[in-house]
Amino acid sequence: MNPASASAETFRAIDVIRKKRDGGELSGGEIDYLVNSYTVGDIPDYQVSAWLMAVVWRGMTRAETAALTDAMLHSGEVLDLSSLPGRKVDKHSTGGVGDKTSLVLAPLAAAAGIAVPMISGRGLGHTGGTLDKLEAIPGFNVNLPVAEFRRVLESCGCAMIGQTAEIAPADRKLYALRDVTATVESPYLICASIMSKKLAEAIDALVLDVKTGSGAFMKNEKDAAFLAELMVETGERMGKQVVALITDMDQPLGCMIGNALEVVEVVEVLRGQGPQDLRELCLELSGWMLHLGGVADTVADGKRQSEKLIASGKALDRFRQMVELQGGDPRTIDDPKKLPQARHTMIVSSPRDGYLTSLQCEQVGTACVILGGGRERKEDSVDPAVGIVLHKKVRDAVSAGEPLATIHYNAESRAVRAQQLLTESYRITDAPAGEKRPLIHRVIGKSGEKN
Amino acid sequence: MNPASASAETFRAIDVIRKKRDGGELSGGEIDYLVNSYTVGDIPDYQVSAWLMAVVWRGMTRAETAALTDAMLHSGEVLDLSSLPGRKVDKHSTGGVGDKTSLVLAPLAAAAGIAVPMISGRGLGHTGGTLDKLEAIPGFNVNLPVAEFRRVLESCGCAMIGQTAEIAPADRKLYALRDVTATVESPYLICASIMSKKLAEAIDALVLDVKTGSGAFMKNEKDAAFLAELMVETGERMGKQVVALITDMDQPLGCMIGNALEVVEVVEVLRGQGPQDLRELCLELSGWMLHLGGVADTVADGKRQSEKLIASGKALDRFRQMVELQGGDPRTIDDPKKLPQARHTMIVSSPRDGYLTSLQCEQVGTACVILGGGRERKEDSVDPAVGIVLHKKVRDAVSAGEPLATIHYNAESRAVRAQQLLTESYRITDAPAGEKRPLIHRVIGKSGEKN
Repeated sequence: MNPASASAETFRAIDVIRKKRDGGELSGGEIDYLVNSYTVGDIPDYQVSAWLMAVVWRGMTRAETAALTDAMLHSGEVLDLSSLPGRKVDKHSTGGVGDKTSLVLAPLAAAAGIAVPMISGRGLGHTGGTLDKLEAIPGFNVNLPVAEFRRVLESCGCAMIGQTAEIAPADRKLYALRDVTATVESPYLICASIMSKKLAEAIDALVLDVKTGSGAFMKNEKDAAFLAELMVETGERMGKQVVALITDMDQPLGCMIGNALEVVEVVEVLRGQGPQDLRELCLELSGWMLHLGGVADTVADGKRQSEKLIASGKALDRFRQMVELQGGDPRTIDDPKKLPQARHTMIVSSPRDGYLTSLQCEQVGTACVILGGGRERKEDSVDPAVGIVLHKKVRDAVSAGEPLATIHYNAESRAVRAQQLLTESYRITDAPAGEKRPLIHRVIGKSGEKN
Repeated sequence: MNPASASAETFRAIDVIRKKRDGGELSGGEIDYLVNSYTVGDIPDYQVSAWLMAVVWRGMTRAETAALTDAMLHSGEVLDLSSLPGRKVDKHSTGGVGDKTSLVLAPLAAAAGIAVPMISGRGLGHTGGTLDKLEAIPGFNVNLPVAEFRRVLESCGCAMIGQTAEIAPADRKLYALRDVTATVESPYLICASIMSKKLAEAIDALVLDVKTGSGAFMKNEKDAAFLAELMVETGERMGKQVVALITDMDQPLGCMIGNALEVVEVVEVLRGQGPQDLRELCLELSGWMLHLGGVADTVADGKRQSEKLIASGKALDRFRQMVELQGGDPRTIDDPKKLPQARHTMIVSSPRDGYLTSLQCEQVGTACVILGGGRERKEDSVDPAVGIVLHKKVRDAVSAGEPLATIHYNAESRAVRAQQLLTESYRITDAPAGEKRPLIHRVIGKSGEKN
């Protein structure tokens, strides 16, 4: 970290704001000065928020985005995992509904011989969060100190925790400010926020899952691809292998939404079962992780290895091992009834015969939040037991009265609101309409040449 | 003022920021909420600074600009001068170098039977300020309480003070924030800042002097005319007669720059003497004030009346009276030697024969600030005695070695810096180059129909 005291003599916050306001390109020194001085409290919030809005307005060059990422990364501790053998590879998703791939991928890639030091987040808006899902497993501790995180990683090849106070403090401070100043929605700021945290994990390679569709933050593919390119280029500028898959989030991934329910579905996939789309995406992402991690010559080879590790039960063993090492009850893996269970269920039925043509994915996520599976306000606690099980997915035929989904709930008033929202989110037509959306839209990144 | 507590239930700052960020038009209610809640401290600086940058980016509609002006105006006390007979008219300049017209106009219009309740500002950047000039008169008090301001106004028809804590507190708070977040340069925010303070004076009409050229904040005429139109329309929407003159500030106005020196030149003009450009602009602005004030049928008639009030000595008498009523030493009017005098002078000579083709006006203003006649930092005190006397103006013939200007100084090191800057600001060519710039570029406003 450049000491703010040294750079403070050379730069003034107002000049940096003005330069960005007028569309200029900031130097690495100017960006370092701003990030470091803000982190230590030498620049007030009101100057940084004006600067953030100027960034939303004017954007950033690739060099500025990399400099911002680097300054945020070095605002705190960067893990040193050089004593661990093998390449370290992580996966990051931009957030979706029913996206529980991280819980499958960490043990799966670890079983293949890769180290997966995964630092994840909580649910944001209508989307689910890896930490909330892990905490559905009774006893599972996502707040390990760094030394303990390293110990779990050494023992089983993967470990999953939340962001610590030491990692990228500039991101935590900037993110809190962006959240209250309507400056979240800038691809440059999103990129720097994600990449600074991921690069603090001391990884060699990163597989990004950039979601697009009605359940993603990036509703259209163009925006998703732009963010993906930005993250790939930023990671490459910083000496990492990065590949981004633009994947579909126009309907929930898999059939279960809700924290404990999603753990059930994770175990199904690790047993070689579970819904086809979730299984396919896990294998694709795992294929890339194994390829970039150097244990598979091609992505196809990585997928084949992953299938074998699932069939042999090694991936599930690794998951059970990690759960136990992080304080979770391993019996939940073999007996899903030991996971938190909602007291009641309620059915959403089809009003007519036809085909399920679309499912407003963000509304499904919001319905789960309403049930208590996510947070309406930051200080809310999450109910791990509630959620939604989808019985039909897009292009499925349905009959009048047939169950479309089952709501698992604890509070009836919440269930009624969720049921109404779910009912409105279904579109059923006489014939299947439109083209089938692919699960993997595109792969972005030079590292993808050996597909 | 709408109570923030009532509107706070309906609006959220983040939604107002987001709407402006996305280019939407804010409602009067949203703007009222933001301004009122900010003034009372219910919305933090960091949200307002993000909003200000979004305004710089997206601009404002005429309705939004008027709503912002109105909210700022009603954030504090609005004077009630209805007990005073006659129409109240004021003049406001956007700031220049050597612009001392306010000191001529207030007593001149008062002598014609108009009430001039003038609330002015201090020097900003390279420009001079009316309050600083008035304070060059020993004893002159610009910090009168409102009751005393009213008494002076009743006695002599004009009074000149600084902004009180009660008038437009929202503007003071917003201005301080704009100053440190690079959000000063928005015509919408400039308009609301100026108009909210001027309309708090309870005036019926306002003559705006919008400067353009190398010594103005608006360097080009297009920007000046845009700001002028905005202020005229905003004033008219609020039921006031407003006219704006776009006037030249490509070289200093008159020959004297510096607080006490400018008072000397004011007295010269009130005696029917002084430099031609300053005299002409004072008569033009006074003609408009008298016309809008209802004592002259046309602007031309207003100018003729003004000339007579100068010739008869009535305007100067009124100035002397106001100075005395506000605690100033009236002997300074008749004996300029009683004004603060600098200890030393230094000549800037012409390096060659030719014609003075241009004079970088902002640099001349900055040279005066360097001498101590303005502030480099907010907390600096001003030296009233120092300044610059110009012996040549643009298009004048000059000979090698002939004095171009005299620097009045108290500190030699400052004089040397000022001399260097002045020397660099002159451009002398073999023949007069370019067309002569008119003093009055344009007149903007429907009130100008009876020119």
